[in-house]
Amino acid sequence: VEIKVVENVLKLNDEVALLNRVALRQADVKCVNLMGGPGCGKTALLERTLEALRDDMRIGVLTGDLTTTRDAERLAHHCEHVSQINTGKSCHLDANQVRQGMGTLPMDDLDLLIVENVGNLICPASFDLGTHVNVLVASVPEGDDKPYKYPRMYRGVDVLVLNKVDLLPHVPFDVERFRRGVEALNEGVRTFELSCRTGEGLDPWLDWIRAQARAGTARA
Amino acid sequence: VEIKVVENVLKLNDEVALLNRVALRQADVKCVNLMGGPGCGKTALLERTLEALRDDMRIGVLTGDLTTTRDAERLAHHCEHVSQINTGKSCHLDANQVRQGMGTLPMDDLDLLIVENVGNLICPASFDLGTHVNVLVASVPEGDDKPYKYPRMYRGVDVLVLNKVDLLPHVPFDVERFRRGVEALNEGVRTFELSCRTGEGLDPWLDWIRAQARAGTARA
Repeated sequence: VEIKVVENVLKLNDEVALLNRVALRQADVKCVNLMGGPGCGKTALLERTLEALRDDMRIGVLTGDLTTTRDAERLAHHCEHVSQINTGKSCHLDANQVRQGMGTLPMDDLDLLIVENVGNLICPASFDLGTHVNVLVASVPEGDDKPYKYPRMYRGVDVLVLNKVDLLPHVPFDVERFRRGVEALNEGVRTFELSCRTGEGLDPWLDWIRAQARAGTARA
Repeated sequence: VEIKVVENVLKLNDEVALLNRVALRQADVKCVNLMGGPGCGKTALLERTLEALRDDMRIGVLTGDLTTTRDAERLAHHCEHVSQINTGKSCHLDANQVRQGMGTLPMDDLDLLIVENVGNLICPASFDLGTHVNVLVASVPEGDDKPYKYPRMYRGVDVLVLNKVDLLPHVPFDVERFRRGVEALNEGVRTFELSCRTGEGLDPWLDWIRAQARAGTARA
């Protein structure tokens, strides 16, 4: 007998990611994939962003976690269109979870969709979700060696946010060493250095988010 | 025809973990699995520990990372017996990697083996390495909500270290909220609150490490 081999999970994921990309284009919604380690400030950055832009544009959010609806609850104070995706034991979002999440949102009414990935610097880099722009949130207390140790994540992103710059006086973090590590992997990557706590440096990030929504999916 | 099903990866991992436990008992080496998110300070805690105890006991270290020998190089300043395990794309150590790592160390000459896992709060909790004690390193800037969001990791550990307590005045972190989250998942878990940067709170941790080596594998 000939034994048929079932195609691998990553291949199926890529096919569903393509379906997501088609659905986003049909709704003309640009989609941002926000990644970063646990506690880097992904949810805090979303809170700041939604709070600042709620009157300017309609942002939908899908937020991924192993369990609980904590992040969605935090974000619901600033946004009508938030859904939580619980991944159980899985350390990353996959395209099918995003597809199901999109099904819970009024996609045609949105200007922008932001997907907050599970807190992890490794596996999210390997799973295409069908999103248009990959953003990595790094944070100062994680240390300046992270680009060197997680090269796949740093290499694959379109935009880098360095959060918690207000802690620079209190931790050993060599900004030049961090930047050199980033440049070696991802030359010229657009970078925002900011603090969600103090608000320092947020304006250029907000301008960039506004531009994403205006650009729509045509240029994605 | 009858199609045989190949046993799953986790099952095989558990069998190799058992082999590791046997090898550790034969060498009479207690083994600690050090886990935590990226940048929580696992390597810094090891540096402090090896530096303080190098004249008292012989500690071997296996340090896991996706790539580079950075952590092993940092630790080699304080320890003769360090090997780096590179996991490639994998977000956790598995028992076979630890088995191979043990093969590079003079196990019979050691009092204690510390395994530094890959920076990740999710998957390391699911892979038994054959180690005797699971230690989680949390850090203040990650935020006080982490027990609630990563329950599997917090529930499964024998010891918790809360690092970077020197940053408490500079970040929003409610120690009581954190402790309540921990207690709900892992009642009475032994906890060390310390700062690898300032040295505050390190002595009780060092006493605990000394006691691990003295206890040997008989009580493990």
